[in-house]
Amino acid sequence: MRHQTAAILVIGNEILSGRTHELNAHLAAQRFFDWGCRLQEIIVVPDVESRIVAALNQLRHGYDAVITSGGIGPTHDDITMQAVAVAFGVPLHENADIIKAMIERFGTEKLNSARRRMAVVPEGAKLIRCRLTPSPGIRLGNVYVLAGVPDIFADQLEVIAQDFGGEPRLRREIEVSLPESLFAKALSDLQARYSDIEIGSYPGSCRPPYSGKICLSGSDAQRLDEVFAEVGGMIKSLQEAKG
Amino acid sequence: MRHQTAAILVIGNEILSGRTHELNAHLAAQRFFDWGCRLQEIIVVPDVESRIVAALNQLRHGYDAVITSGGIGPTHDDITMQAVAVAFGVPLHENADIIKAMIERFGTEKLNSARRRMAVVPEGAKLIRCRLTPSPGIRLGNVYVLAGVPDIFADQLEVIAQDFGGEPRLRREIEVSLPESLFAKALSDLQARYSDIEIGSYPGSCRPPYSGKICLSGSDAQRLDEVFAEVGGMIKSLQEAKG
Repeated sequence: MRHQTAAILVIGNEILSGRTHELNAHLAAQRFFDWGCRLQEIIVVPDVESRIVAALNQLRHGYDAVITSGGIGPTHDDITMQAVAVAFGVPLHENADIIKAMIERFGTEKLNSARRRMAVVPEGAKLIRCRLTPSPGIRLGNVYVLAGVPDIFADQLEVIAQDFGGEPRLRREIEVSLPESLFAKALSDLQARYSDIEIGSYPGSCRPPYSGKICLSGSDAQRLDEVFAEVGGMIKSLQEAKG
Repeated sequence: MRHQTAAILVIGNEILSGRTHELNAHLAAQRFFDWGCRLQEIIVVPDVESRIVAALNQLRHGYDAVITSGGIGPTHDDITMQAVAVAFGVPLHENADIIKAMIERFGTEKLNSARRRMAVVPEGAKLIRCRLTPSPGIRLGNVYVLAGVPDIFADQLEVIAQDFGGEPRLRREIEVSLPESLFAKALSDLQARYSDIEIGSYPGSCRPPYSGKICLSGSDAQRLDEVFAEVGGMIKSLQEAKG
């Protein structure tokens, strides 16, 4: 059974201090949409064990699956693995397969204590390997622990893709050069009539010359075409009436 | 008393579906850092009243202040004001000052029901006005309700800047071209010795040629200089030893 709902837990002081512009949650959101899995929540917490544990326990009980990003490197601020172990109430242990992969990559002489630290994972974890590093992500229950470094996160995300699914959705957008207030009522009526299509309005500029997009999404292509035509027609006649 | 800790609640299906790359939380994170206010958490939820209410109540009781972003326009998917009213258990009412500002901007004849909807705010709300729109954000208790449109959000954020403060922090970064595992132990020892300086390590590439940055932040400039010199010296000698 594939996970049909999911949440993302981003871990890192650097995001909350504004140092780093977080990219992984947006990438995952796009991929979830493609896979048909509904991303329901994103939480960002600092590198503080109690905060990671609390957020993780909240999310893993609320959704089919949780992906975490960040905090699995070798430095003192990388504490995600131990937080996951605490959240699940399982011990940490050094994983022999990871040690083996590290020795293959670096040789025994370069297997220092910091690298060994990256081989310490919660008991019962399945490894999520990718080609970029011998230090894997892990899966424990419905939690997937991935890296924070964007290219490694992206690679690991594709490795676990087959665990996520649902009804794939399609999206259509309509460009609008009207203030939202001019079509809000008509759009609300259309949303009420077509409850299986999600209709959102996203203004670009709220001042003349107004710009924005109406976004439609749903699982049924024919139905989406139908609503697309109706919303498009409504906007077209309002734009003609205006000018 | 200025707010010394804060959280951000981002509201919008478009973020979770991957349609829109959220920008406001990162901007706010940068400004909070400048102001000396500690951003402690970011949560992103969909346009669902119960979800907004639950997240808002969690955050407003956990931190000095909460800033929300999104869902205050005139369309059916804009439900933040009503969710805030539910969270606080207060009624909504049409605000005469907002109606007046709208009439000044658009004239009475263009004050349609959708625009009037943007004048409906929770009872007791203080208005957060900005030059870009006559539809203000609001403050209710320790919650600041701002727009999702980035230029309006940015403008409203500056309007409320004086409510946030604390001990301003400084940041220093050191470029590193070593694998983290080579300096993780030494860095951990330094962090243990200088607990008033936050030390983070952020790899760019985890493969040869390795790249990354060590980031130091703290409130005391002299102390920061001291740790900067020590970490810099440690990295320099490791890089020289490596050749």
